Amino acid sequence: MTPQDRVRAAYAQLALGERPEAWITLRAEPDVLAEAAAVEARLAAGETLPLAGKLLAVKDNIDVAGLPTTAGCPSYAYRPAVSAAAVQRLVDAGAIVLGKTNLDQFATGLVGTRSPYGAVRDVRDPSRVSGGSSSGSAVAVALGIADLALGTDTAGSGRVPAAFQQIVGLKPTYGVVPVQGVVPASRSLDCVTVFARTLAEGRSAVAIMSDPFPADAPLAAPPQPVIAVPDRGDLPHMSEEWLDLFERAGKTLESAGARLRTIRLAPFLAAAKLLYEGGFVAERYAAVGAFLDSLPDDADPTVAAIIGKARDIPAHVLVADTERLERLRTDAMAEWGDADALLLPTAPFHPTIAEVTADPIGVNARVGTFTNFCNLFGLAAVAVPAGIGVQVITRGFADAVAADIAAMLVGAEPAVPYSAGLPLLVIGAHLSGQPLNHQLTSAGGRLAGPVRTAAEYRMHALPTTPPKPGLLRVALGGAAIAGELWELPPAALGPFLAALPAPMALGKVRLADGTSVTGFLCEPAALTDAPDITAHGGWLAYLES
Amino acid sequence: MTPQDRVRAAYAQLALGERPEAWITLRAEPDVLAEAAAVEARLAAGETLPLAGKLLAVKDNIDVAGLPTTAGCPSYAYRPAVSAAAVQRLVDAGAIVLGKTNLDQFATGLVGTRSPYGAVRDVRDPSRVSGGSSSGSAVAVALGIADLALGTDTAGSGRVPAAFQQIVGLKPTYGVVPVQGVVPASRSLDCVTVFARTLAEGRSAVAIMSDPFPADAPLAAPPQPVIAVPDRGDLPHMSEEWLDLFERAGKTLESAGARLRTIRLAPFLAAAKLLYEGGFVAERYAAVGAFLDSLPDDADPTVAAIIGKARDIPAHVLVADTERLERLRTDAMAEWGDADALLLPTAPFHPTIAEVTADPIGVNARVGTFTNFCNLFGLAAVAVPAGIGVQVITRGFADAVAADIAAMLVGAEPAVPYSAGLPLLVIGAHLSGQPLNHQLTSAGGRLAGPVRTAAEYRMHALPTTPPKPGLLRVALGGAAIAGELWELPPAALGPFLAALPAPMALGKVRLADGTSVTGFLCEPAALTDAPDITAHGGWLAYLES
Repeated sequence: MTPQDRVRAAYAQLALGERPEAWITLRAEPDVLAEAAAVEARLAAGETLPLAGKLLAVKDNIDVAGLPTTAGCPSYAYRPAVSAAAVQRLVDAGAIVLGKTNLDQFATGLVGTRSPYGAVRDVRDPSRVSGGSSSGSAVAVALGIADLALGTDTAGSGRVPAAFQQIVGLKPTYGVVPVQGVVPASRSLDCVTVFARTLAEGRSAVAIMSDPFPADAPLAAPPQPVIAVPDRGDLPHMSEEWLDLFERAGKTLESAGARLRTIRLAPFLAAAKLLYEGGFVAERYAAVGAFLDSLPDDADPTVAAIIGKARDIPAHVLVADTERLERLRTDAMAEWGDADALLLPTAPFHPTIAEVTADPIGVNARVGTFTNFCNLFGLAAVAVPAGIGVQVITRGFADAVAADIAAMLVGAEPAVPYSAGLPLLVIGAHLSGQPLNHQLTSAGGRLAGPVRTAAEYRMHALPTTPPKPGLLRVALGGAAIAGELWELPPAALGPFLAALPAPMALGKVRLADGTSVTGFLCEPAALTDAPDITAHGGWLAYLES
Repeated sequence: MTPQDRVRAAYAQLALGERPEAWITLRAEPDVLAEAAAVEARLAAGETLPLAGKLLAVKDNIDVAGLPTTAGCPSYAYRPAVSAAAVQRLVDAGAIVLGKTNLDQFATGLVGTRSPYGAVRDVRDPSRVSGGSSSGSAVAVALGIADLALGTDTAGSGRVPAAFQQIVGLKPTYGVVPVQGVVPASRSLDCVTVFARTLAEGRSAVAIMSDPFPADAPLAAPPQPVIAVPDRGDLPHMSEEWLDLFERAGKTLESAGARLRTIRLAPFLAAAKLLYEGGFVAERYAAVGAFLDSLPDDADPTVAAIIGKARDIPAHVLVADTERLERLRTDAMAEWGDADALLLPTAPFHPTIAEVTADPIGVNARVGTFTNFCNLFGLAAVAVPAGIGVQVITRGFADAVAADIAAMLVGAEPAVPYSAGLPLLVIGAHLSGQPLNHQLTSAGGRLAGPVRTAAEYRMHALPTTPPKPGLLRVALGGAAIAGELWELPPAALGPFLAALPAPMALGKVRLADGTSVTGFLCEPAALTDAPDITAHGGWLAYLES
């Protein structure tokens, strides 16, 4: 489908009039078609556009140049001249903005009903909420109108609507995606998030939107990750049916090779309560409190009440809560231990609009039970459908680990990595399944794929423990040797080299495609008595022989 | 001098009765002598104690097991069962605690007069203040009674007294030294600091007190560091004489090889004002406000007024100030650019006690002009005497850079490094003064010293650009080759390896002492037509020939 065809298909579906409340501003079809034509022209001119023709919906607290930003409050609206950095990076990669989506006003809520533009209804059951605050974005993706949609996530707004709409929601680590051009909700916690129908598409968008990750950020999950899971009895507000479905998600991970480990959820749930019941709400007042104090007619009464109440919180209470949060984080991380991820339900139940109307604050608080602590603790999370919506939560900057483990639940294909590693060609004991491969996986390494060297090498069998091949570049009589190309986090390659014993060395190895990468070589003095096994063409073939 | 002799000398000097107000709790001489005897016994048993017999004074807001902690307020006192982590690490290394020192109450002040235990007077001119809040600690070191003293630094309390008492004050990056066991002043800013008479001694203490530095923290200053300095006209509150002395310090650095670059100080000075004039004082109220609200008779009136006023600061003001601080930090760091350090006066003038009494808040604020921004921006600093007290300020975790540049001012000998690097033996173009040496220094590398390989190698001259030697381990006929052992930040070694072109490789090289370190090797295929220059014994000797 060409980008223009994709746009026409989206407007055809929009014309069906499903969930029109999902949109605050929808661009005119001819304008979007013209942009699709421009993307086609860029492609024709030879540009590489990884998101060419993907249709993008943008939560209306994120700036898109030329469209009003309302944050769900018409009288707050302004018309930005430049797009938010996150939007611009997607557009530069070929994405096309369809419009701006409805949200819980000022991104304050997890339900999707707190908006003068209307309560956004669930795609399957219109009596239920869509989830919020990124309600319209999730619905636009769930209906198939948009391919990608941006949300924001402070308490869980990038995950709860994904859970209810049965799509994928990726919440990167705080700080990874720039928040320039985003109306702040709680400035020390706000994250820009992505909704998509497939994990691979969502992951590509996050990779494009992100600043570089730290040099020690893991590039991939280990093949047999350790997953922390709570006991059934440790999960409040859930029905027996939902508890069964959550346990089934754990078993799916187990069948895919993960090891489950039970942890106590208490410090996580205690931190979650701090988000709205303590000093942190003052960040919301600092962002839009003065505006809401002017009592606009179109303020949502629940939102105005929550934020207005924060005006008089003393600063020393915020300080004390920050300190309490740090203690809870220490406790929580002690529970977490060496787990690669924590598996949790995204929300404990899916409320009806009537339930939310009857108890707007209480129901919303219960919906956030399992999401509210995440940004307070600086964690990353990926929400995926698995019977019920579940989230794979990882330590900060381990976003790739979360996405890889989420892929074990939904069977997604591997997507582009989040950050660039340093290449390392391995040809022997570090190959997948071989005795030293764990040195690569425990360092956060990522298998890029099988490769062959240029036909310039001889390989010998060294009498080391464990046995290893020794590779030597020769002027004449060389052969191509099979290996694997891995990538290591840049900060991990040096310690790997430092731990390497003689006679192994790392230098440049030429690959069959003519490029050179860092790879294993061997000091020639060690090869004198080591049998030449070049004829096998690779270490695994030699081992099998 | 044995540890017991050192203790006797200290008590003999204490008996002279100079500045008795420096001490709040002084231990009985027999107790301290017994501890010195225990240190002697540990030495005799073969323990390595880098601080054996060094006498330590501890600011009285830092716990020492068994001694009261008053924080300068008798009715606040408690008797901790365990010492602060920083104290314990020094004691474990052989230091001996003499007692607890006077301070501006609750570490709130830069003058040393705000204490019911008396105003601490300058060591040279008793009409002037000692500087604070770590007043007693600085005076104990300046008088020669203690070798090392712990302070804390939120606004400048670990540097201003060092400036006035003409000693060295090291303020590590926030978070490097644990604050467990320290009475908080402003919890997001407090740092434990060290006073010493020599930079090398102070540096050793910081190295022992610190948690591990991040893997990319530089290990040393480059040989020709770029130093940011303000224009004379950009330095408020200073006399012409002090301005001349400050300019002279810049010229000293220049003569030692540094390059000076003028920067605009405005964003730094604007941030400094935020420390006491905005929401951050609420951290002080959160720490001890409830106690001071009980109006103890022994509260210092100035301290009680400053902290009491913070009770009613709204949390949203603290949030807004945090945001403003981030903008100022962005501006300041844009000014900073690629400078390795910022050179500033530590304080703009040295007030008399009478001046402080006449205007306790105003004079204190002016004293902090050049120190207050430092922790707000997460920077490291080393204060040294240079005619007037000056500070070398660096980015966070570049503590080693600050200390190395401070050493260019005071001519101190190199001390133990702050963090462990990964060793790298270089033998050619990366040697000091050679064309690729900048790759090591710009990565934060540190020269550990000259070394020789074991007599197992041959060296060839490669026809590369720039010319390089190729090292090959041989079974017979090898020689010892001269080189330099460097250490690189662990995160820097991998990128260094990744950038290395063929035929260079890194593997294990045996040194003359039998140890093996990562070092330069060469693919043998490249040596065929490269002349053997082993007989020169090293690359520099070959180049000279």
